[in-house]
Amino acid sequence: MSDTSEIDTLIEARWVIPVDARQSVLDNHAIAVHQGNIVDILPAHVAQAKYNTKKNVDLKSHALIPGLINTHTHAAMILMRGLADDLPLMTWLNKYIWPTESRHVDDTFVFDGTRLACAEMLRGGITCFNDMYFFPEAIAQGALATGMRASIGMIAIDFPTPYASDADDYLAKGMALRDKLQSNPLLSFCFAPHAPYTVSDQTLAHILTYADQLEVPIHIHLHETTDEIDISIKSHGMRPIERLHQLGMLGPNLIAVHMVHLNEAEIQLLQQHGCHVVHCPSSNLKLANGFAPTPLLFDQAVNVTLGTDGAASNNRLDLLEEMRLAALLAKATSKRADTLPAYHALEMATINGARALGIDAFTGSLESGKAADITAIDFSDLHLSPCYDPVSHLVYAAGREQVSHVWVNGNILLENKQLTTLDEADLHRRALYWEECIKSSI
Amino acid sequence: MSDTSEIDTLIEARWVIPVDARQSVLDNHAIAVHQGNIVDILPAHVAQAKYNTKKNVDLKSHALIPGLINTHTHAAMILMRGLADDLPLMTWLNKYIWPTESRHVDDTFVFDGTRLACAEMLRGGITCFNDMYFFPEAIAQGALATGMRASIGMIAIDFPTPYASDADDYLAKGMALRDKLQSNPLLSFCFAPHAPYTVSDQTLAHILTYADQLEVPIHIHLHETTDEIDISIKSHGMRPIERLHQLGMLGPNLIAVHMVHLNEAEIQLLQQHGCHVVHCPSSNLKLANGFAPTPLLFDQAVNVTLGTDGAASNNRLDLLEEMRLAALLAKATSKRADTLPAYHALEMATINGARALGIDAFTGSLESGKAADITAIDFSDLHLSPCYDPVSHLVYAAGREQVSHVWVNGNILLENKQLTTLDEADLHRRALYWEECIKSSI
Repeated sequence: MSDTSEIDTLIEARWVIPVDARQSVLDNHAIAVHQGNIVDILPAHVAQAKYNTKKNVDLKSHALIPGLINTHTHAAMILMRGLADDLPLMTWLNKYIWPTESRHVDDTFVFDGTRLACAEMLRGGITCFNDMYFFPEAIAQGALATGMRASIGMIAIDFPTPYASDADDYLAKGMALRDKLQSNPLLSFCFAPHAPYTVSDQTLAHILTYADQLEVPIHIHLHETTDEIDISIKSHGMRPIERLHQLGMLGPNLIAVHMVHLNEAEIQLLQQHGCHVVHCPSSNLKLANGFAPTPLLFDQAVNVTLGTDGAASNNRLDLLEEMRLAALLAKATSKRADTLPAYHALEMATINGARALGIDAFTGSLESGKAADITAIDFSDLHLSPCYDPVSHLVYAAGREQVSHVWVNGNILLENKQLTTLDEADLHRRALYWEECIKSSI
Repeated sequence: MSDTSEIDTLIEARWVIPVDARQSVLDNHAIAVHQGNIVDILPAHVAQAKYNTKKNVDLKSHALIPGLINTHTHAAMILMRGLADDLPLMTWLNKYIWPTESRHVDDTFVFDGTRLACAEMLRGGITCFNDMYFFPEAIAQGALATGMRASIGMIAIDFPTPYASDADDYLAKGMALRDKLQSNPLLSFCFAPHAPYTVSDQTLAHILTYADQLEVPIHIHLHETTDEIDISIKSHGMRPIERLHQLGMLGPNLIAVHMVHLNEAEIQLLQQHGCHVVHCPSSNLKLANGFAPTPLLFDQAVNVTLGTDGAASNNRLDLLEEMRLAALLAKATSKRADTLPAYHALEMATINGARALGIDAFTGSLESGKAADITAIDFSDLHLSPCYDPVSHLVYAAGREQVSHVWVNGNILLENKQLTTLDEADLHRRALYWEECIKSSI
């Protein structure tokens, strides 16, 4: 027909769940993708007539959802997964994680670890991750080698590591990296001061100035443990949030991670300043930090997103798991089974993350004009049959083993559960190499 | 060689994790299986010389663990999974579950649902389940069709259903079923009074008499919600545990499910009487019932096991998930990251369940003389690489998608992730049939 349009790819699916403002679930719809973007979402039978496609992907028993966004991780720490468990945070850091890091972490470690983590995240439907770790250029190269979207943390910490000598050195290296790579459409950047107890007022003030000039978010661990709060009261005479408030850091570019221990006034401050909260339920439980008060944050309409944290404290990079756990915990802590219904949990794992990272103009939901960052879940698995409500199954019943396809920016990175950009055998070899190195040093 | 013994199967594995009293992890060991039983566990290189085997199974990158025991479920409710979510327990029961049950539940529903649940459980490494539902003969037939071990609940409830007319009728039917099937080595039986608020003192007294005579356990929902406790105080002037205590029901044959709301005196009573507790973390969170005080139960050395509950309130029949969640929640509620370390969580999912069901003499751990109820987890998956500690990975990182083989009583029921006794296409057809029936009636 003369009036058909040429497009790159048409993906037809049993359901399209766009995660839009109307909380739609579209039956038997198709997504038209052209030059990396979603150009149309329409009933499948109409799409066939309207578009002339180079590639047709027929996913008749699948749901298409926006690619999941992991708003807080330390991807390369996957190489230390299971090295030390069942320990309190400070013992875990001081006795195991930090010594291992100081011995082994370099560019190669971070590149290998990040690619391994990308493999796990992609196989779990994650298309974008927000990272905080040393050697951020290796993080960026790992993400680019994979084809994933990434927000790269320009890390800062007030002690020397093999990566940088002092706070100024960290920041200079981070900003030079941003200058070098910021034109890449898959990358965005955050300042990433590690935590209130590892970064001085002076460093935080510098970061705030730069962040305002460059208009980039600030990504920080905050109110994770009661120890952190006690230390702040001793050292600064106030709780960490109050300290950041006095420094002028509360605002819509603040991505505050964990936020387990919050009082009412602090939640109001977050709301008033439009701060974003990253909820990391598995990590908070595993390190015995407690239960973030997500129901109270929802009541104040604070933007709450989800993160896996690093695989050394989770120990999965599995956002379907975090979504399910966030929904279950919110019900139990609020004592109301209707708290955090399934669609809301899906929003936390997608559009809310994009908002926090400041990239919601082009990802986080399936809408015309946005990038084609798409995850397909195969509902033909016996574990999802029968099905009365695909969103319920996504949140409460599905596992990452049902993720079949992932596109980022229109490129297919997972096809029928096979990675297209990463060599699994090579990732295995590198993982074993690091396992031997680390084992021989503990 | 003349001194080799003939055996049916030799399973060699990277690790054998027997869940014995020493919390062993055996490297490169093999399990010798003959006539359904484990006859030896020994280093793999020794096994090759010692045994002449009909079948050799080489699992060089796998861990062998005891088959998981799901100590509380309503298997057939899988056909109602996702029918109604994000609702409080009583709304969920009164508006959705009970009306659907009264319309649809019959022998065929239970047989189809149980087989579908068995498929899910087997694919998740579960070899034995303790069920409570209507039409228990259909449960037993579903389990036998699959080859799984099952503990069949002789259900009792003080209102009529299509299955039975009154409490006496329930009990008569249950006991007749037990008489008919108890010689089957894969089946055991429990009395299963539904809950304190649905069963009268008189019925409980009858059950206690029968249970003592027949030496079978009593399986009951107990202290699941605060409502249940309030109702008991109004109707009986005491909390449900006190009521059971006065009836003489507390003892080592009591399997008390949920136990979310417990005071110190009640925990001591459980300890003094040797009662067993089934912890169902996902279900307790999802229905907003709260956090069972497992750390306090551990302190008193109460035997705590794990259950998925039914798929209508979980919504997974996934004991690896429950094991992980139990470990994470125990840390967060006790505020100690060293509470419920990984090996202990594995005990809850295996030997502790066998103890509660009174079948630990022949299952629940990998030891010579016990039945060959064995689950293999494939550690070659990229998600489990690198590996510093297989038990940590089992509890915190592995998913049921890594379960590769399952044996029950020496019979292989899952081989390279394929079910050997169930026809997946048929299970799908039956699931769709019930989906249509139920959808058309709501």
